[in-house]
Amino acid sequence: MTIDKNTNILIIGLGIIGGSYAKGFSKQGYNISAIDKDEATIKYALKNEIVSKATTEVDAKLIGQADLIIFALYPHIFKEWIKENQKLFKTGAIITDVTGVKGCIVEDVQYILREDCEYIAAHPMAGSEKLGIYYANEEIFHQANYIVVPTEKNTPEAIDVCKQVGKILGFARISQLSPYEHDEMIGFVSQLTHCIAMTLMTCNDTEDLQDYTGDSFRDLTRIARIDETMWSELFLLNKDALLHQMKLFTMEFAKLERMLMEADKNGIKEMMRHSTARRKLFDKE
Amino acid sequence: MTIDKNTNILIIGLGIIGGSYAKGFSKQGYNISAIDKDEATIKYALKNEIVSKATTEVDAKLIGQADLIIFALYPHIFKEWIKENQKLFKTGAIITDVTGVKGCIVEDVQYILREDCEYIAAHPMAGSEKLGIYYANEEIFHQANYIVVPTEKNTPEAIDVCKQVGKILGFARISQLSPYEHDEMIGFVSQLTHCIAMTLMTCNDTEDLQDYTGDSFRDLTRIARIDETMWSELFLLNKDALLHQMKLFTMEFAKLERMLMEADKNGIKEMMRHSTARRKLFDKE
Repeated sequence: MTIDKNTNILIIGLGIIGGSYAKGFSKQGYNISAIDKDEATIKYALKNEIVSKATTEVDAKLIGQADLIIFALYPHIFKEWIKENQKLFKTGAIITDVTGVKGCIVEDVQYILREDCEYIAAHPMAGSEKLGIYYANEEIFHQANYIVVPTEKNTPEAIDVCKQVGKILGFARISQLSPYEHDEMIGFVSQLTHCIAMTLMTCNDTEDLQDYTGDSFRDLTRIARIDETMWSELFLLNKDALLHQMKLFTMEFAKLERMLMEADKNGIKEMMRHSTARRKLFDKE
Repeated sequence: MTIDKNTNILIIGLGIIGGSYAKGFSKQGYNISAIDKDEATIKYALKNEIVSKATTEVDAKLIGQADLIIFALYPHIFKEWIKENQKLFKTGAIITDVTGVKGCIVEDVQYILREDCEYIAAHPMAGSEKLGIYYANEEIFHQANYIVVPTEKNTPEAIDVCKQVGKILGFARISQLSPYEHDEMIGFVSQLTHCIAMTLMTCNDTEDLQDYTGDSFRDLTRIARIDETMWSELFLLNKDALLHQMKLFTMEFAKLERMLMEADKNGIKEMMRHSTARRKLFDKE
């Protein structure tokens, strides 16, 4: 399947990510319909031509026409939705998603899904601390990574369709990981960073902090504004990988603490040089 | 003293901060001279009209004319410089600085300084991971905080001159703390954040990380590119305050770890709500 202007694309869930997907596709003339349970979201999406058709109902016709269905829901709702409504899917429909953890989801969904449809998991590594379609902005994808997360059950064709989604939306880099690799990686680069930001924001009671903070503190706590419903769920779904990453971080942090106690200036400098060298690899410029 | 176009301002050390000070003053027509031991730096500063006079020498005339001397050196060099060259200061000269720790510096310098001059400490909370005058940019101050750090030895007049510097350079907020308060605050908002960023950058050996990172990881590690000479010195000069802040962070982080192990979703959500509420206070918009 090649995604083109005749492909019926259905997005389930028009939050910040689903909404940004819809904008990105629609601006390029793709045919996007959507389902979201929130009436105001649907009105906004239609009025602003982010989607061509949209409804708050589980609309059998809309679903039955879809060649590609993209789920942008909280993880537990995603699974429930599939169970209840997969009878409406068209034969041959490709299902994908944007869920931030994979290990506990991909195999389950592939297991429950009808045999004449295929689910191929994806994770667009972009987001915003602001929620809802009102902040949807397809540009958040343009510097971001898009990870396709297949299992051995997936066909090359579905993997290709999933990569097409990433290409159309203009992600800077498209890569592929197994669910296990994905979850370890995410535990480190995304979940651990959120744990750190939250901790930094809550570990010190000093008032009027904002009078004294520099950019460092602002940068390290930007993601401390966090959607507790989604992230508490993501953390617990990826508990083992996240705890492992927290342990690695804690051990390294304790090493630095010891060097400080012992006034080991050379050791501290060496760690700083290592840190600087690794960080240089990340600079976009 | 009111700083005006006739005030002779001398900056010692034209690195990223000294250079940005010089640019900020010069662009507004103030009379800036500078001393820096690096020949190329001096040439660049003169050629680009960042300063009107500059030299690599400890120039008795330049120093003797200065009404206001701003030190932008590594902490240990700052103290040595004062000891060796204060005989050249003009009577009544006001000395200030940009040093990132205060407790171990302010009282020492005030103690060794000639009685007919006055040292009033300041900390501009801005910086860059790039070093040298070539990256000097006075705009880094415009969203930043400027902290004046007086002791009981300081006169209201010198405190006022120090605040004038902050105003002229266009800092967003000018506040005042004692050396002890300053160092605790800095231990938290600046040094702890650098410890975290370094740790995050070195705790996991995964290669090709840059293929998978989102903005969160980039944000939390921006300051992991760190000048090891300056920061190892700053850390050790503020060792007790920093170790205290590291302990507070570690305890809170361990609390989150425990909640995860116990799958205490409500506890995690509560911490996320607390974090979100506190972080909202920081948003510039």
